[in-house]
Amino acid sequence: MSKDIGIFGNQTMGQEFLAGLEKKQFMFSLVISYTDTCTIPGITIAGKNPDLLAYTPPADAEFLNFGYCRCIDAIPMSPDGKPTPGLLTKTALEAASISNVVINAGSKIAPKLPYFETGLDYGKNIAVEPAMPLDSVTQAVEYGRMIGRTLGSFTDCLVIGETIPGGTTTAQAVLTGLGVKAKVSSSMPKNPTLLKNKIANDALAKIKSTNPFDVVAAVGDPMIPTVAGMLSTASSLTKVILAGGTQMAAVLAFSKITGYEKKNIAIGTTSYVIDDHTANLVDTIKQIDDIPVISARLALKDSKIDGLRAFADGFVKEGVGAGGASIAAMLKVGIDAKHLLELSEAEYQKTISQSRI
Amino acid sequence: MSKDIGIFGNQTMGQEFLAGLEKKQFMFSLVISYTDTCTIPGITIAGKNPDLLAYTPPADAEFLNFGYCRCIDAIPMSPDGKPTPGLLTKTALEAASISNVVINAGSKIAPKLPYFETGLDYGKNIAVEPAMPLDSVTQAVEYGRMIGRTLGSFTDCLVIGETIPGGTTTAQAVLTGLGVKAKVSSSMPKNPTLLKNKIANDALAKIKSTNPFDVVAAVGDPMIPTVAGMLSTASSLTKVILAGGTQMAAVLAFSKITGYEKKNIAIGTTSYVIDDHTANLVDTIKQIDDIPVISARLALKDSKIDGLRAFADGFVKEGVGAGGASIAAMLKVGIDAKHLLELSEAEYQKTISQSRI
Repeated sequence: MSKDIGIFGNQTMGQEFLAGLEKKQFMFSLVISYTDTCTIPGITIAGKNPDLLAYTPPADAEFLNFGYCRCIDAIPMSPDGKPTPGLLTKTALEAASISNVVINAGSKIAPKLPYFETGLDYGKNIAVEPAMPLDSVTQAVEYGRMIGRTLGSFTDCLVIGETIPGGTTTAQAVLTGLGVKAKVSSSMPKNPTLLKNKIANDALAKIKSTNPFDVVAAVGDPMIPTVAGMLSTASSLTKVILAGGTQMAAVLAFSKITGYEKKNIAIGTTSYVIDDHTANLVDTIKQIDDIPVISARLALKDSKIDGLRAFADGFVKEGVGAGGASIAAMLKVGIDAKHLLELSEAEYQKTISQSRI
Repeated sequence: MSKDIGIFGNQTMGQEFLAGLEKKQFMFSLVISYTDTCTIPGITIAGKNPDLLAYTPPADAEFLNFGYCRCIDAIPMSPDGKPTPGLLTKTALEAASISNVVINAGSKIAPKLPYFETGLDYGKNIAVEPAMPLDSVTQAVEYGRMIGRTLGSFTDCLVIGETIPGGTTTAQAVLTGLGVKAKVSSSMPKNPTLLKNKIANDALAKIKSTNPFDVVAAVGDPMIPTVAGMLSTASSLTKVILAGGTQMAAVLAFSKITGYEKKNIAIGTTSYVIDDHTANLVDTIKQIDDIPVISARLALKDSKIDGLRAFADGFVKEGVGAGGASIAAMLKVGIDAKHLLELSEAEYQKTISQSRI
C-alpha cells in the first residue's frame, strides 16, 4: 500500500478496502451541481466573483478534460494564483490513465463537453426558500441509481467527486437535519462556521419533518441525492470512493435511507481536510456509520509555487474529488505524493501560461 | 464460436475479431437521433404516426432500460403487433448482463432517463434544406471522440447501436455523396428505393463539394458524425461493433476521413439485413474498406408470435443495435438463437400485457 495514504476510523476495513484495489482499474465521475445558497455573501471563495460562481462547476469539468475552460474565458485560479483543486484531480487522473465521466446534477450552466444529463434543476438558496421540490429529490435518487448501476458495472472502483459552490453549507444543513453533529470544512482558512450554522438552523427551523427526503428537499442541494443514488447501486456491484470532505458525509448520512453495501465504501479525501481543526470529518463519519476515511497525504507544503503551497495552509483543501483521485492514482500505478507534486507543478505552469497567450 | 453467427466479407478478419471476444465484457451504447427527413411521406414505418416519429428514439431508449416507454403513453409496437427491434436488443442485453448507455445526438425529444448529452440539434429535412451547419458536424465528431475515448477505456468491446427514423434515407444520401454505390435497407418489405434515391440525388445536386464534412452537413444526420467520432477513438483502445445495417455503412464511409483502427472493427447486424435482396450491405462495406460484416442468425421465423415472425418476412429487420447486441450476447455467454427467441417471446408477452393494464 502506498506510504502516502492514511486510514482513519476503522483501520481493518480501511486496509481491506485498499488492499483490494492495488493495480486495479478505476473510473472517476465528477458530479457537477449548483445551489443559489452560494450567493450568500461570505460563505465561499470558489470562483473569483459572485456572478461567476455558477460557471465554476462546468469550468472544473472542462478543465479536467481539456486543461482549459470553455464556458468562460478565464483560467481556473483566484486572482492571487490559487488554482482549482481540479488541477490536482487532473494531474492524478492523467498520471494513472484514469478516464472520467461528467454528470450534470443541476448545474446552472451546462459544460461544453459530453456529460450525463439528469434533467435536474439547480438548487435554490436555502436561506430564502426550499432547495428543491420533493419530486426532484426522488428523481435525483432514481437517476443516480441508474447511473451508478451502469458505471459501477464497468470498473473495479468508481470514484465519485463533486463540484458545487456553497455545497458545504447545504451539507452542514442536511447533516444537522439528520441529527449528525458536524463541523463542516471550508474552502477558506477562516471557516465561517457561525454563518453556516445560522443559515442551516434558520432553514431547518422552517420544516417540521425529519424524513431524510424532506430534509434534503428543504435544505440540501441536487448533488446529495444524485450521489446517494449512485452510491446505492454502484456499491452493490463494485468498490466506491466518495471523494470529498464533509459534503460526502452529507451524502452518506442521506444514503442511510437509500441504502448501500457498506464493505465496498470508503470516504477519500486530502490530508488538508483531515488536518482542518475547525471541522471534524472523521468524527462526523463515525456518527453515521463505521466506514473508513482514507486520505491522500499530499506534498503541497513542499511546493515552490505559492498557489499550491496555499492548500497546505488551509485554502481550498479539497474539491473536484482531488483527494479520491490522488488515492486512485497511488493505488493504480503506485505513484507517490512527491511525484504527484512535480506533475501538479508542471500542470500549474501550463495553466498559467494560457493566460499570457 | 457460436453456430448462430455468420461472417461475410473478409473471413479471416471476421474469425479473428470474434475469437478475441469470447466470454469477454461488452458495453452497449445506443445513439438516439432525429432527422426531419423522416416526415417525407412513404419512407419509414418507424412509429405509428408521423407526429409520433420524433418519440421513437427516446421511447426505444426508455424501453431498453425500463421495459416500457415514459416519454409517450404507448407500447413500442405497430398497431398490428410488430414490436420495435429494441425488444430483441433488450432481450439480448439482459440475457448476457450487458449494461447500456444512451447517447443523445440530436434527438428531438429527450428521453426520461440519464443520457450523455452532446448539445446537438436534430437534423433538418434534406429534401428541403441542409441537414445541419458544418459546425455541428465538427462538434458531433469532437464530442463523439470524447465519448468513444471514455467508453472504449472501460470495456473489451463497445457495441454502438442507433435509432433514428428516416436514417436509411440520409445514409443513402451520404453514401452516394461519398461515391459509394449502395442500395440501402428499409424497415418495410417493399423498400421505397426509388423515393430514397430521388431524395438523395436531389439533395446532393444542391451541393458542389465532395468533402465528407460538407456532404454530411448537407445530406446526413447528426448520428453519422457522432458515431464516426466514437469509432475513431474507441477503436484505438478496444474492439468496436457498429451495430446496424446500411446506416453503419454511412458511418464507416464518413469515418475514412475521421480515422479508425481497422483491425478492431466489425459491422454487426441481423441475418434479415444480409438476406435483404433489395439492399447490398456486404458489397457496400467492401467498397469502403476490408472490414468484416458479422450477422446474428436469429430464429424469428420459428416464432409462434406473428409480430416477431414478421422480422423474418422482411419487416423492420434491424434497428436499436439488435443484431450487434445479439452477437454480443452469443459471444459473452454462449446463448444461441433458439434460446434468444424464447426470451424474446416472453419479453413480447410482457410488453403487450402492459397495454391491458
